[in-house]
Amino acid sequence: MRIGVLTSGGDCPGLNAVIRSVVHRAVVDHGDEVIGFHDGWKGLLECDYRKLDLDAVSGILARGGTILGSSRVQPAHLRDGVERAKGHLAELGLDAIIPIGGEGTLKAARLLSDGGLPIVGVPKTIDNDIAVTDVTFGFDTAVGVATEALDRLKTTAESHQRVLIVEVMGRHTGWIALNSGMAAGAHAIVVPERPFDIEELTKQVGARFEAGKKFAIVVAAEGAKPRAGTMEYDEGGKDIYGHERFAGIARQLSIELEQRLGKEARPVILGHVQRGGTPTAYDRVLATRFGWHAVEAVHRGEFGMMTALQGTEIVMSPLAEAVETLKTVPDARYAEAECVL
Amino acid sequence: MRIGVLTSGGDCPGLNAVIRSVVHRAVVDHGDEVIGFHDGWKGLLECDYRKLDLDAVSGILARGGTILGSSRVQPAHLRDGVERAKGHLAELGLDAIIPIGGEGTLKAARLLSDGGLPIVGVPKTIDNDIAVTDVTFGFDTAVGVATEALDRLKTTAESHQRVLIVEVMGRHTGWIALNSGMAAGAHAIVVPERPFDIEELTKQVGARFEAGKKFAIVVAAEGAKPRAGTMEYDEGGKDIYGHERFAGIARQLSIELEQRLGKEARPVILGHVQRGGTPTAYDRVLATRFGWHAVEAVHRGEFGMMTALQGTEIVMSPLAEAVETLKTVPDARYAEAECVL
Amino acid sequence: MRIGVLTSGGDCPGLNAVIRSVVHRAVVDHGDEVIGFHDGWKGLLECDYRKLDLDAVSGILARGGTILGSSRVQPAHLRDGVERAKGHLAELGLDAIIPIGGEGTLKAARLLSDGGLPIVGVPKTIDNDIAVTDVTFGFDTAVGVATEALDRLKTTAESHQRVLIVEVMGRHTGWIALNSGMAAGAHAIVVPERPFDIEELTKQVGARFEAGKKFAIVVAAEGAKPRAGTMEYDEGGKDIYGHERFAGIARQLSIELEQRLGKEARPVILGHVQRGGTPTAYDRVLATRFGWHAVEAVHRGEFGMMTALQGTEIVMSPLAEAVETLKTVPDARYAEAECVL
Amino acid sequence: MRIGVLTSGGDCPGLNAVIRSVVHRAVVDHGDEVIGFHDGWKGLLECDYRKLDLDAVSGILARGGTILGSSRVQPAHLRDGVERAKGHLAELGLDAIIPIGGEGTLKAARLLSDGGLPIVGVPKTIDNDIAVTDVTFGFDTAVGVATEALDRLKTTAESHQRVLIVEVMGRHTGWIALNSGMAAGAHAIVVPERPFDIEELTKQVGARFEAGKKFAIVVAAEGAKPRAGTMEYDEGGKDIYGHERFAGIARQLSIELEQRLGKEARPVILGHVQRGGTPTAYDRVLATRFGWHAVEAVHRGEFGMMTALQGTEIVMSPLAEAVETLKTVPDARYAEAECVL
Repeated sequence: MRIGVLTSGGDCPGLNAVIRSVVHRAVVDHGDEVIGFHDGWKGLLECDYRKLDLDAVSGILARGGTILGSSRVQPAHLRDGVERAKGHLAELGLDAIIPIGGEGTLKAARLLSDGGLPIVGVPKTIDNDIAVTDVTFGFDTAVGVATEALDRLKTTAESHQRVLIVEVMGRHTGWIALNSGMAAGAHAIVVPERPFDIEELTKQVGARFEAGKKFAIVVAAEGAKPRAGTMEYDEGGKDIYGHERFAGIARQLSIELEQRLGKEARPVILGHVQRGGTPTAYDRVLATRFGWHAVEAVHRGEFGMMTALQGTEIVMSPLAEAVETLKTVPDARYAEAECVL
Repeated sequence: MRIGVLTSGGDCPGLNAVIRSVVHRAVVDHGDEVIGFHDGWKGLLECDYRKLDLDAVSGILARGGTILGSSRVQPAHLRDGVERAKGHLAELGLDAIIPIGGEGTLKAARLLSDGGLPIVGVPKTIDNDIAVTDVTFGFDTAVGVATEALDRLKTTAESHQRVLIVEVMGRHTGWIALNSGMAAGAHAIVVPERPFDIEELTKQVGARFEAGKKFAIVVAAEGAKPRAGTMEYDEGGKDIYGHERFAGIARQLSIELEQRLGKEARPVILGHVQRGGTPTAYDRVLATRFGWHAVEAVHRGEFGMMTALQGTEIVMSPLAEAVETLKTVPDARYAEAECVL
Repeated sequence: MRIGVLTSGGDCPGLNAVIRSVVHRAVVDHGDEVIGFHDGWKGLLECDYRKLDLDAVSGILARGGTILGSSRVQPAHLRDGVERAKGHLAELGLDAIIPIGGEGTLKAARLLSDGGLPIVGVPKTIDNDIAVTDVTFGFDTAVGVATEALDRLKTTAESHQRVLIVEVMGRHTGWIALNSGMAAGAHAIVVPERPFDIEELTKQVGARFEAGKKFAIVVAAEGAKPRAGTMEYDEGGKDIYGHERFAGIARQLSIELEQRLGKEARPVILGHVQRGGTPTAYDRVLATRFGWHAVEAVHRGEFGMMTALQGTEIVMSPLAEAVETLKTVPDARYAEAECVL
Repeated sequence: MRIGVLTSGGDCPGLNAVIRSVVHRAVVDHGDEVIGFHDGWKGLLECDYRKLDLDAVSGILARGGTILGSSRVQPAHLRDGVERAKGHLAELGLDAIIPIGGEGTLKAARLLSDGGLPIVGVPKTIDNDIAVTDVTFGFDTAVGVATEALDRLKTTAESHQRVLIVEVMGRHTGWIALNSGMAAGAHAIVVPERPFDIEELTKQVGARFEAGKKFAIVVAAEGAKPRAGTMEYDEGGKDIYGHERFAGIARQLSIELEQRLGKEARPVILGHVQRGGTPTAYDRVLATRFGWHAVEAVHRGEFGMMTALQGTEIVMSPLAEAVETLKTVPDARYAEAECVL
C-alpha cells in the first residue's frame, strides 16, 4: 500500500512520534510505502511531499515539533480543495491519507472523507477537547510543563507574600488549568466552562490570607471569563498595529485581585512553552499507539474514522462524531479539584 | 466521621498526594476528623498514630515518600491481627480505615474487611499490575524516570557503539519495561509475561548491526526470564552473607549478548530511583482523585471496595476482585511495541 | 557565638541552602546559636525572629524560596534604621549578622557595617551582576530554566515557521540572556549593555530566512533597548490603574520584526518562573559553600566583608567593593556568543 | 585554514556542543574548512572523516553523545601512530587538529604535539580530574543527574527507613561524589582521595539513627576504598566469563553497614546514565566557549596547548602541564562538605 501522512494545526508534543510509528508499522511490518506531505494540508493541495523511510524517522521519537512542518491551511476553505486533493491522491497512487491534527483538521478530514477520500485521522490537541477519545497526546506534556512552572512559582509566592495568577492554555476548555492546578495544589482555578464571579473568587483567595497563609496561586485558563456583569472585562482585541492587545485574563485578574485584596498580585503567562519540546513518556506511548492503529485501520479499510483512546484500548471512532461536540470539563471533575483548593 | 488512613508496602510517588486529598476532602468538605497510622498496618496494630489536620498535609502534594512512613507488616500474618485491629478501631472511635497500598496491602484489606472492618482501599503500585483499575498512581512517574534514563543512555550507546541492557522494575509484569521501552524507542523489550528465546533476541539485536546501526538498547523487566532450556540462567539467590547475589537479568543478558554478537554489551540497573521522588502531574492528579473518592465511598458506606480508574472515571471496585488476578501485559500491547523496535 | 541570619530582596533559588549551611556549620561544628529574622531587614528592625536549630532547616536544601520570608524593606531608608538595628543586636546578644541578598541588601549591609554592626554578607542575585564574585547562586538555575524553555520553544518555532522573541530576566545586565541564548543556540541575543540597532537585528534574523531556514529565536533581556533613534520604543509605564503597562521589549520586537520581515513573530515572556523553585546542583553547592564560609568569617571576626567565588575558591571580599560597580557583560563574552548565532 | 576535529574516549555531555562551536567559529567567522574524523584517533589514523559544514552541525547543540563517534584507540600505543597521523595531516592539507578528550586523549595529543603536529586540545571529562582547568564540560551534567537521582532516593529512604549507598562515577577522584553529595544533602560521602575507616563511617551513619532519624544516604565514588586493614574488600575483578564481577563499593558497603548497624541497607549504582544525554546549560556554554577559543588558538598558531577555564576566563594552557597531575579533591573542599552531613 501507499500511505500519505501529514501534520496540521498548532504544535503539539508527540507529532513526530506518530509519524515515526506510522512509518515503522507500515514500512517494516506491512511493506507499505509512506510519503509525508509538507506543511499540513498545504502539502497535499500543492503536491509537496517527500518519501518517509526508516532513516527519515530515525531519532525523532523524543523530538518536539514535526519533521513535516505544519500550517493552518484547511482544504475545505478552498473552493476546489476537495477536488484537488482527490486529484493528487490519484496521481500519487495513494491508498490512504493519515492526517494528524486538531479539531479544525479533523473537520477538514471529515469533509474530504465525505467527498470520497480514504482517510484515517489521528486526533491531536494539547487542549484535550476532542470528544470520543479519553485523552490525546500532547495534553500530558502541556500539563506537565504547566505543573513544573507552578511548582517553581509557588516557592516564590510563598516567600514573597503575593498572589500569582498563572495563565495556562485553553481557549475553550479548562482541562490544562484543571489538571495542572490540581497537580500543583493551586488555590483557585478558573476555566471557560464556568464563568467566575469575581466577588466569590476574591472571597476564596482572601480566605487563605484570613487563615494566616501568606500567598495564593490562581490558575486561569486563557479562555476563562467573568460571569456577565460581575466585572469589567477587556477582551483584548487588536492594537493600532493590528496585533493582539495582550490584555488577557491573568493581567485583568491580577489588577482586580490586587485592588480587592490589598495584596500584591502578579500575572504570569506561560504561553507557547506548553506546546513545544520533548513529549512525556505518556504522550510518546499514546502517539506511538495511535500511529500503529491508524495503519491497521488503513489496512482494514476502515475509513472516515479516527483513532481514540477508551480506557486502555485504542479504538476507531467515526470522524463525524469526533467533531460534533467539544469535550468540556464536567462539573464533577471541577468539584474534585475544589477539594484541594 | 472519624477516618484512619495508612500507607503500606514499598515506596510509590503519589502516596502523600492521596493522604493530602483524603484530609482536604474529609476535613474541609465533610468536617470529618482524620488520623494517620504510622508505618502502615503496624501503626494500626500498635495504635501508633497522629492527627492529620490541614497543617499536617501542607506542602506535601509534590513530595515523594509518605509522611506516615510505611512497613511491610501484614495484619493477616499475625494470629490476632484482625482482632487487634478491630479493637483499636473501636477504641479510637473510627468509622472507616483507608489503607493505601499494593497487592499485599489490598489482600490484607480484604481480610480485614471480611472480618467486619469498614475499609475503603486505595490501590498503589508502580508496577501497574492491579487488575480492575486502568492504572495506578506511581506508574507514570516510574515510566517517566526510566524513559529519561533511557534517553540519556541512548546517546552514549550510539556514540560509543555498544549494546546496553537496561533493567527496569517489574518482577511479575512488564508494564514499566513495555511503556518506557516504547517511549524511548528501545530495540528489544523483554518482560516476565513472555519468556524470551536468547537466539531470537540475539537475532533481533544483531539485525540492527547488520543494517548498519552501531548500537542497540534492550529494556529488560527485572522479572524477565529466558524460555526454559534456551539459556543458562542464574537466579541469583543469596550470597555467603545472606544477601542477594546481584545476578539479575541485565547482567546475564549483557554477558550473553556480548558473546553471541561480538559487540561490547553493558548492563545498567536503574533500581530504586524509579520508585521515589516527586510524582508526575499525571500521578498527582490520579492520587488526588483516588483520595477524594475514597472519602466519598466512606460517606456512602461503601466498604470492602477500592478506588479504581476506568477510562476517565473513578469508580469503586470490590477488593475481592482487585486481588484475584495480576494484570499482565497482553499480547496485543506487546505487539504494538514491536512496531517501534 | 550567637549569629543572626536573614534573607532580603527578590526570590532566588538557593536561599534555603545558605540558611541550612549557616546553621549546620555554626551549630554542629562551632556550637553556636543561630536565629533567623523574618522577612529580611524588617525582622531585624522589628525584632521578629525565631531560633534556627537543625530541625528547623531539615529538608530545606532543595526547596526554593526562603523559610525566613523576605521583603524589600531597607534599613538605610529609615531615619533611625541603623540605630534600631544596633539596639536589637545588643538586646539579642548577637555577635554577628549574616544578611543574604542582592545589590540593595549588600548596600544596606555596608551602611550598617560602616555604622559599626558586625556583618558578613552573602551575595544573592539571579542576574549575576554583582562584581567581585565570579557568579552567585540562583543564576545557574535561572539560566537552566530559561534554556529549558528555549529548547521547548525551538521545536515549535521550527515546525510552525515563525520568529519567537523570548524575554528573559535582566533589567540592567544581559547575563541570563547571554548564557541561555548561547546554551539554546538562539539566533540573536539583545542585552541592556549593547543597545541594538533594529535594522541590523532585522538583517541578522532575515539572513536566516534567506539561507532557507524557516524560523528564528531571539532572546531579549528585559532591559534590552534599541539604540537611540533607531526605533520607536514604548517604555511601558503605568496604565490607568497605576499598574505596569506590560509593554516590554519582547512585544515591541515581535511587532517590529513581524512588520519588517513579513514573518509571523510572537513574544514569550518567561517571567517569575526563572527565579523560583528547586535550585540546580551547582547552585546548591555554591550556596552551601557561601554559608559555610560566612560562618568562618564570623568566627575570624572578618566583618564588613562578603563571600565571593573566585575560580574554585571562596574568598572574602569587602562589601564596599562589591557594591561599587555592576558586573556587565563584556564585549568579549558577547563576541563568543555571536559565533553560535 | 583547514581544521580537523575529533572526539575520543568515553561519552561526555557537551561533545557535540564543542564540535558545533568549532564549526561555527571557523566556518562562519574565519571562512575555514572543517573536517571531522570518525571514532576518535582511529579516524585520523585510518583517514576516515567527513566534511563538517553548518548543516552538519545543525540541531546538535543540546544532543548528548558525539556525531563523530568515539573510540579508545590511542595513536601513541601504535608503533607508527605519530608518523601515520603526520602523513594524513599532510595528505589532507590540515593546518591543525582539535582533539576533544580526557586524560588519555590529552596525553596522546601531547605526544603528537611533541612529534610536531599542530594541535590544540579541548579537555573533556565528567570526572573533573584534569588539572589546570577549573572545570570541564560534562561534569555539571553528571553532578546534576546524580543529584536528581539522590533527591528521588532520599524520599524512599526516609519513608521506608533504610540506608542507601549510592555509587556515583569517579574511579580516581571524588568530585562527582563530593558535589552531588553536597547538593543532595548526603549524610556521608566516601571518595578515593580519602580511604575511609569503616568503623568511623558506621559511627557517623549510626549517629543519625541515635539522633532519632530514620534513614541515611551514603554517596560513594566508585573508586572509594576502605583504609587498608579496616575492612575486607573485594576488588571485584573478572568472573569466569572474563567480565567484571560487579562487586563494587556500594554493594560492599551495603553489606557492611547492614551488619554493623542492624538496619536495612541497599546499594544503588547510578552507572552510565551520568555520562549521557542532553548537557546542562552550564556545560553547553562552557563547551561552546572551549570550541570558540580552540579555533582562535589555531588562528594564533598557539599549538601544544589546550583550552582551560580559569575563573570566568578561557585561557590556553600547555598540554604538558595538563596531564602531569590528576586534580583531586583537596581536604578543604571535603571539609566544607562535612558541615552538611
